[in-house]
Amino acid sequence: MTTPGTTWVEGAAGSRFDVDNLPYGVFSRAGEEPRVGVRIGDRVLDLAPVAAAEMLDVHHVFEERSLNALMAEGRRVRESVRTWITGLLTDETERDLVEPHLVPLADVALHLPIEVADYVDFYASEHHATNVGRIFRPDGDALLPNWKHLPVGYHGRSGTVVASGTPIVRPTGQRPGGAFGPSARLDIEAELGFVVGTPSELGSPVPYGAFADHVFGVVGLNDWSARDIQAWEYVPLGPFLGKSFATSISHWVTPIEALAAAWVDLPGQDPEPLPYLGPGDTLGLDIDVEVVVNGDVVSRPPFRTMYWSPAQMLAHLTVNGASLRTGDLYGSGTISGPSPDQRGSLLEIGWGDESAFLADGDEVTLRYAAPGTSGGRIALGEVTGVIRPARG
Amino acid sequence: MTTPGTTWVEGAAGSRFDVDNLPYGVFSRAGEEPRVGVRIGDRVLDLAPVAAAEMLDVHHVFEERSLNALMAEGRRVRESVRTWITGLLTDETERDLVEPHLVPLADVALHLPIEVADYVDFYASEHHATNVGRIFRPDGDALLPNWKHLPVGYHGRSGTVVASGTPIVRPTGQRPGGAFGPSARLDIEAELGFVVGTPSELGSPVPYGAFADHVFGVVGLNDWSARDIQAWEYVPLGPFLGKSFATSISHWVTPIEALAAAWVDLPGQDPEPLPYLGPGDTLGLDIDVEVVVNGDVVSRPPFRTMYWSPAQMLAHLTVNGASLRTGDLYGSGTISGPSPDQRGSLLEIGWGDESAFLADGDEVTLRYAAPGTSGGRIALGEVTGVIRPARG
Repeated sequence: MTTPGTTWVEGAAGSRFDVDNLPYGVFSRAGEEPRVGVRIGDRVLDLAPVAAAEMLDVHHVFEERSLNALMAEGRRVRESVRTWITGLLTDETERDLVEPHLVPLADVALHLPIEVADYVDFYASEHHATNVGRIFRPDGDALLPNWKHLPVGYHGRSGTVVASGTPIVRPTGQRPGGAFGPSARLDIEAELGFVVGTPSELGSPVPYGAFADHVFGVVGLNDWSARDIQAWEYVPLGPFLGKSFATSISHWVTPIEALAAAWVDLPGQDPEPLPYLGPGDTLGLDIDVEVVVNGDVVSRPPFRTMYWSPAQMLAHLTVNGASLRTGDLYGSGTISGPSPDQRGSLLEIGWGDESAFLADGDEVTLRYAAPGTSGGRIALGEVTGVIRPARG
Repeated sequence: MTTPGTTWVEGAAGSRFDVDNLPYGVFSRAGEEPRVGVRIGDRVLDLAPVAAAEMLDVHHVFEERSLNALMAEGRRVRESVRTWITGLLTDETERDLVEPHLVPLADVALHLPIEVADYVDFYASEHHATNVGRIFRPDGDALLPNWKHLPVGYHGRSGTVVASGTPIVRPTGQRPGGAFGPSARLDIEAELGFVVGTPSELGSPVPYGAFADHVFGVVGLNDWSARDIQAWEYVPLGPFLGKSFATSISHWVTPIEALAAAWVDLPGQDPEPLPYLGPGDTLGLDIDVEVVVNGDVVSRPPFRTMYWSPAQMLAHLTVNGASLRTGDLYGSGTISGPSPDQRGSLLEIGWGDESAFLADGDEVTLRYAAPGTSGGRIALGEVTGVIRPARG
């Protein structure tokens, strides 16, 4: 007999993957097709056979090789599936049914969890934008005139969003002045990614208050960046090849419900944003990030110090009538806090020191943790990647 | 009996939709699912039943609601399907089989022909980039330092690529200084779009010479642009909401083979581009464009005056190792020729006259024509759209 609300899964209770977390992912066992699972402790629950046995209406969504079908079902199904899974994992009487479908993480391969529709990247940390402004425009204003009026963003390449663990081949390209070769300033951007479940209609903005109706969950996100390629190409249409070679996301998508205890007031916005950006009651997320390079924690960016909120980014993205699709992904932009040990890119961490950029063989891991709804901490999906040499 | 190489389809021989054209599209009859057809004269050949009757290996690709499955088959299949269709439409002995599957255009609905993967937009017309530079930076150099070293480009929103005929709702958003309201400077960009069929591997650039191995065909493309929204938001990460509300493409995708007689030398490139951009033998396309506003031809941009070639754009897009997917779409950027009556945007046509921008109810159509392989002219798919008022 377990305490109500406590999981019977061995080793999971009190861990960072307890029943207050329950992130979704796509896994496979050797020789089998990938399908949807949920993480509990150090195991994956294979949802498809359990859902079929319990004749769940939406059992087919767990047989897919991405979370998109589940995400497309919308908020009510997302919430009721979570309640159902919580019951399975806390009610001892479900144990005989469920236990045979708990697979050790060590026995599975994990895959890209979503089929990415459009990928947008924002630039929502004031500290990051200020740092970058100071580095690139030492004599000008650190922030450009539009920065406090709207969450600046742009579209990235969705076809090169890869799963955590995918090796990153150093990109080759043009550098300032038209020189050509492998990037010499390969960088990371420690971000949080938001995944859209429920689509919206073309021509109809998604209001600020509809965030949780549309956003399914969050992923860890590393927006790999070649600073030298980016510096040469980016005027006047923005970053292109300096970013499009790879963006890594975590295997696990943490549903928005798991972050219910993580909402906090933003640091404050001045000037007050326009009404469509929901001024006055803007909430950020109290998520701690660790940037780990070759095993050493080099920085601890706090997501709660972001200037623009996740809901403001979504409202802005659609205010012109742009529609949302299931699988749309938007990144927060690099997360940097006010102190030097809270910076989310090597450009800022090194601040002019060229040796701060990535060398071949370097491994970067981003880790994320937040308050859980049961008083403890939950871990969000981590994102890792190793740099491979440029191709000859 | 018809002359060899002449179609037996009534009214098609000698038209701009003769057998030297044969664009693909997705059509439906009332109450039926959309599927793949090919245009001949003023009819659509319903390919699925004919391919099934002839037991074509790839007959299933014609039953899909987009061209992606056909395009994914690659260059050899693309070429052999074209040869097969040409045979069907020129050989009198096929007439009994084929004729029942020729549907008048008036009896069908046409749909978005492709499932768009990533959408990239270039800026490859020197005349357009120079005009825009002169309008926005009258005291600076018209072209930025990188412009003649690489085809400048950026990612757009693939989820809002819509089929010709889709009404365009005037977007609302922030304008310079943070004012808010419907765009007062709604514009067009007359472009050509290139559609990728054969994918490429992450980490492996697509060489300049592999253009026809990867590109399936071309579409007409209007990259609707809200100049006031764009002007305020675009530093430093490029255009976003000023573009992402809608991009229209033609119903018909003209296969690259139909443009075999349209290749022409580019005007010339100085400085010589880097080797990966295939300097020296760069070919453009001799495609004439007409910009029609409310029934009047207001401009005739010539695609042969572009600075960067379609193959250079593709080589640049992938030089950093970015992979291609079936359904990737890249636009040439606004096509503008050297003379005032060859400009591809209202910004340039009006040159400071605010009344040149689009009013609610305005209808814009882009028409395209090129030399065909039989000595005549072929029409590429046209793109049209009517402006609807901003939503309240």
